[in-house]
Amino acid sequence: MFKKHCSSDQKLINAINNIFGFSPKNIAPYKLACKHRSIAKSSANGYKFSNERLEFLGDAILGSIVAEYLFKKFPYKDEGFLTEMRSRIVSRSNLNSLSRRLGLNQLIETHNESKSTNSIPGDAFEAFIGAIYLDKGYEFTREVIINKIINFHIDIEELISTEVNFKSKLIEWGQKNKLDINFNLVEEEEVNNKHKLYTIDVNVGNDKLGSGKDYSIKKAEQIAAKIAWEKLTGND
Amino acid sequence: MFKKHCSSDQKLINAINNIFGFSPKNIAPYKLACKHRSIAKSSANGYKFSNERLEFLGDAILGSIVAEYLFKKFPYKDEGFLTEMRSRIVSRSNLNSLSRRLGLNQLIETHNESKSTNSIPGDAFEAFIGAIYLDKGYEFTREVIINKIINFHIDIEELISTEVNFKSKLIEWGQKNKLDINFNLVEEEEVNNKHKLYTIDVNVGNDKLGSGKDYSIKKAEQIAAKIAWEKLTGND
Repeated sequence: MFKKHCSSDQKLINAINNIFGFSPKNIAPYKLACKHRSIAKSSANGYKFSNERLEFLGDAILGSIVAEYLFKKFPYKDEGFLTEMRSRIVSRSNLNSLSRRLGLNQLIETHNESKSTNSIPGDAFEAFIGAIYLDKGYEFTREVIINKIINFHIDIEELISTEVNFKSKLIEWGQKNKLDINFNLVEEEEVNNKHKLYTIDVNVGNDKLGSGKDYSIKKAEQIAAKIAWEKLTGND
Repeated sequence: MFKKHCSSDQKLINAINNIFGFSPKNIAPYKLACKHRSIAKSSANGYKFSNERLEFLGDAILGSIVAEYLFKKFPYKDEGFLTEMRSRIVSRSNLNSLSRRLGLNQLIETHNESKSTNSIPGDAFEAFIGAIYLDKGYEFTREVIINKIINFHIDIEELISTEVNFKSKLIEWGQKNKLDINFNLVEEEEVNNKHKLYTIDVNVGNDKLGSGKDYSIKKAEQIAAKIAWEKLTGND
């Protein structure tokens, strides 16, 4: 059956073909995935249609596909490893850069002033996953994510070897919980008249929660931040 | 083809049939789902097999099936509502009580001393979802969760109307973040010589973050806790 699409529909169909390598059956969810909330118009019953609901769905589908992928790829790794790897793959910064690399962010309709919001590309990526799922089902979406995204664009070995930046984790936590995080250089010891050994304390609000010693200030900060992070969260 | 199972396998097959209404193709993942980490034995390569990896997988699969269920059931609700409803359905306390009601916790092999750990039944529930997924795939697992679990055991209307308990949310947050949460009655006013109007302050660490006034102490606490919660998290 021949379906006539308006020219912008055809443009979107071509883009999906180029990016993901398939033709949509139903273009409607993909059109919705392109609608950032900044341009959403109210429908008759007052509901504003934007890609946010699709983003909720796509986030969940992506999470479970990545979980299964890691579960099968690493049969001898424990759930702590699997959880950490998944959160690295689906982190906002990783999804943002994936979305830009795929060119998905070019398809998003948004008001100019909201272009600066950092999460738009990654949100759109999740919304597209939601759209693929509604159009083609779970198995198809899994094949697309594994064959077109993970195998092409994600370097699992590099993700594994990336060290966790505890200082930035801690600062982010402080912003969220409205508590000041301060790193203070409290001591410089000269060792062998040659190297300096630095001691850094980290304060969370009024409490000193960690301290680190190293020949590099950056490393001493990381040690202190890791100790504080483990106290605050009970895990790493 | 006739497969011979040992008696405990047959017992597990019968239990799965009774609880979920189907016969497993492959009993191995369900057997693993019954193994709490307290009884895990190390394999030749040092890896301890328990249900924790399956719990990771099942948690993700359950999350995406519930997300889709809510997405389709509530086409005019925004993603904030969908997120809140999902977190109520998959909350540890809800999964624990589901697991007990289904009788899944009876199947778990665990050391006696760990029976007191509160999350064992809910963890086992997630591990069983992981096992069903590995044995039967996504569509089948979705049918089981919707037809045998959600439609039978979850009262969505009741979950929607349940008020959020901000006091317990705040106390839980305080325990996680190692900060004292204190509710203090700071004023009692007599109104019309008859009713008492209570003022409750809530302190998080050393900071007063909220205050509530009501004729009921419980309600004044909830008002104070809600204000503090919104300050801490930026949302409700």
